[in-house]
Amino acid sequence: MNDITLPYPQLKKFAMEVFLKIGCPEGEAAKAVDVLLSADLRGIDSHGLARLSGYVRLWEAKRINSTPHIRIVHESPSTSVVDGDAGLGLVVAPRAMEIAIAKAKTCGTGWVAVKNSNHFGIAGYHAMMALPHDMIGMAMTNASPLVAPTFSVERLLGTNPICVAIPANEQPPFVADFATTTAANGKLEILQRKNKDAPEGWIQKKDGSVSTNPHELKDGGALIPLGSDREHGSHKGFCLGAWVDIFSAVLSGANYGPWVPPFVSFLAPPADPVGEGIGHFFGAMRIDAFRPASEFKFHMDNWITRFRAAKTIDGQEKLIIPGDPEREFEIIRKKDGIPLNEKVVEDLKSLALKFELKF
Amino acid sequence: MNDITLPYPQLKKFAMEVFLKIGCPEGEAAKAVDVLLSADLRGIDSHGLARLSGYVRLWEAKRINSTPHIRIVHESPSTSVVDGDAGLGLVVAPRAMEIAIAKAKTCGTGWVAVKNSNHFGIAGYHAMMALPHDMIGMAMTNASPLVAPTFSVERLLGTNPICVAIPANEQPPFVADFATTTAANGKLEILQRKNKDAPEGWIQKKDGSVSTNPHELKDGGALIPLGSDREHGSHKGFCLGAWVDIFSAVLSGANYGPWVPPFVSFLAPPADPVGEGIGHFFGAMRIDAFRPASEFKFHMDNWITRFRAAKTIDGQEKLIIPGDPEREFEIIRKKDGIPLNEKVVEDLKSLALKFELKF
Repeated sequence: MNDITLPYPQLKKFAMEVFLKIGCPEGEAAKAVDVLLSADLRGIDSHGLARLSGYVRLWEAKRINSTPHIRIVHESPSTSVVDGDAGLGLVVAPRAMEIAIAKAKTCGTGWVAVKNSNHFGIAGYHAMMALPHDMIGMAMTNASPLVAPTFSVERLLGTNPICVAIPANEQPPFVADFATTTAANGKLEILQRKNKDAPEGWIQKKDGSVSTNPHELKDGGALIPLGSDREHGSHKGFCLGAWVDIFSAVLSGANYGPWVPPFVSFLAPPADPVGEGIGHFFGAMRIDAFRPASEFKFHMDNWITRFRAAKTIDGQEKLIIPGDPEREFEIIRKKDGIPLNEKVVEDLKSLALKFELKF
Repeated sequence: MNDITLPYPQLKKFAMEVFLKIGCPEGEAAKAVDVLLSADLRGIDSHGLARLSGYVRLWEAKRINSTPHIRIVHESPSTSVVDGDAGLGLVVAPRAMEIAIAKAKTCGTGWVAVKNSNHFGIAGYHAMMALPHDMIGMAMTNASPLVAPTFSVERLLGTNPICVAIPANEQPPFVADFATTTAANGKLEILQRKNKDAPEGWIQKKDGSVSTNPHELKDGGALIPLGSDREHGSHKGFCLGAWVDIFSAVLSGANYGPWVPPFVSFLAPPADPVGEGIGHFFGAMRIDAFRPASEFKFHMDNWITRFRAAKTIDGQEKLIIPGDPEREFEIIRKKDGIPLNEKVVEDLKSLALKFELKF
């Protein structure tokens, strides 16, 4: 399958029209578009327009509320719990992050747990909201159970990503945004489309044995936590995924572990929920609650410069600072357009047909 | 080499005498002993009495101050930076964690970055201090550079552990305490003593190629971040180690990356420090700053029970909840004594001789 490259403004306009069609107020639709397309711009293709029709189907199934009353339901000087009222995670998450930033302004740090939400796009978008305020940003979320903890054959956790965004001065910010599995689900989707095998250590069969079949999840297989196997630390990847699940959902009152509702509308949510919707967790830390921001950013420049200059293994050009690849993608794609998989384009065309829009 | 098992109270008494001999005030010596021996009790043998002579040598080299003036040098309602005054990390870290807990009491959460400290024992001890207060505890620290980031041949990071401790009700707490490398350095030491090879993916040679020699670090080799190689996510392990380094040291004003002073006294600290000593980072979050503690702990019990009951891969008895193995060790070793490697016993005997103590 070939990719079709389309200009960013055209895609942005189309996504905006779709969110308006499902009833989002204009400001919220614009925010949802900004979050969604930041994934396409930053090269995380699995989390961008490829998911647009999925959100629409969840709205059709009445599992997404396009006019949510997002509100704080519990708080302390440095914390809040936010009820997302089944809104789009793309809208709920930036609202929650704004609250974290406001708390950090008065209190040094702000921490917001969110329940009753949906898929929030890329974690990086939300964490990076802290950067212009000279704050460190953090974002994490739980997700549909696709991951088997070490020694388990059951899928009990999502790919549960974490992002930490840290400002620098002359250097670009440090932005680590990663699934807590060996490979993100999006990497499997790429192999599926190319009809290629996965490396050992990414997925396991239904019985827990080694698999290299990227379609294995359809037959009851599972993704594996970061580390690949016990000998190489998959129990640590499990710790990370569990941490994200507990902060996002047990702290907030959302569904956790195997109770997290699936993203796909054709699978019903568990009949015995333990909370509301899916959960996220956000943090903002004001740099000058620790030391003057100029001092900190001087040392971040020094950190980044030193690591970037590291002597590399033969054949490798340079050490990659977290955030570098996504930023490079963003520059290119804003200018040259966003390459979309043919299937995604077909999907967007069906949406255009459904809503009588031009694509 | 055989292990020699000695009773916990005898070892505790001896360690106390040693810390008093190097000049620690009685209360601080007792705290240092409690932290140090918690590693031996919990089965993390590399971080307990095996390190006692190392601390003494650092004191002899005037790199550890046994009567530090530990103080807050910067703060906001929810944050502090603590200057450890070159004290034992075993003493500085619990003091910093107490400050985090006090901040959380008034503010919902408390976050403390520490500079000018030394090796703090196991992260778990400090994070678990939050549990009796119905708080979530976090602890992390940077450490001597032994780890090469993905694509690098240079050792730029320590094994930089993270601990997250989360209270439950009837279930024991969730305590995830792990180095952000594929294998902790202590695991290599065990292989060295047994004269066994390491699995591929734990260490690399000086030139970055694959090694299975557990002595490789002596020849300029390096430990590898969690994930083992790029294809299996070692760049994510690098993100984790970098995150710990930046929170512990760039936020606090300690040395970071390759500038972190070595634990061993025979290696001089870098001549061009970028901060003071090594750095730690602690967090405490009051559960009821998010939701009533009883509700949270009910759901933690449910989380733990559900995961513990997971269907396992053939041949594996059960899914291990983070904290289970250490707690089981602690029960047995408190009762039956602590097995010490012969080399560690010799080391302790030399200390007894040096300080005219009975061992």
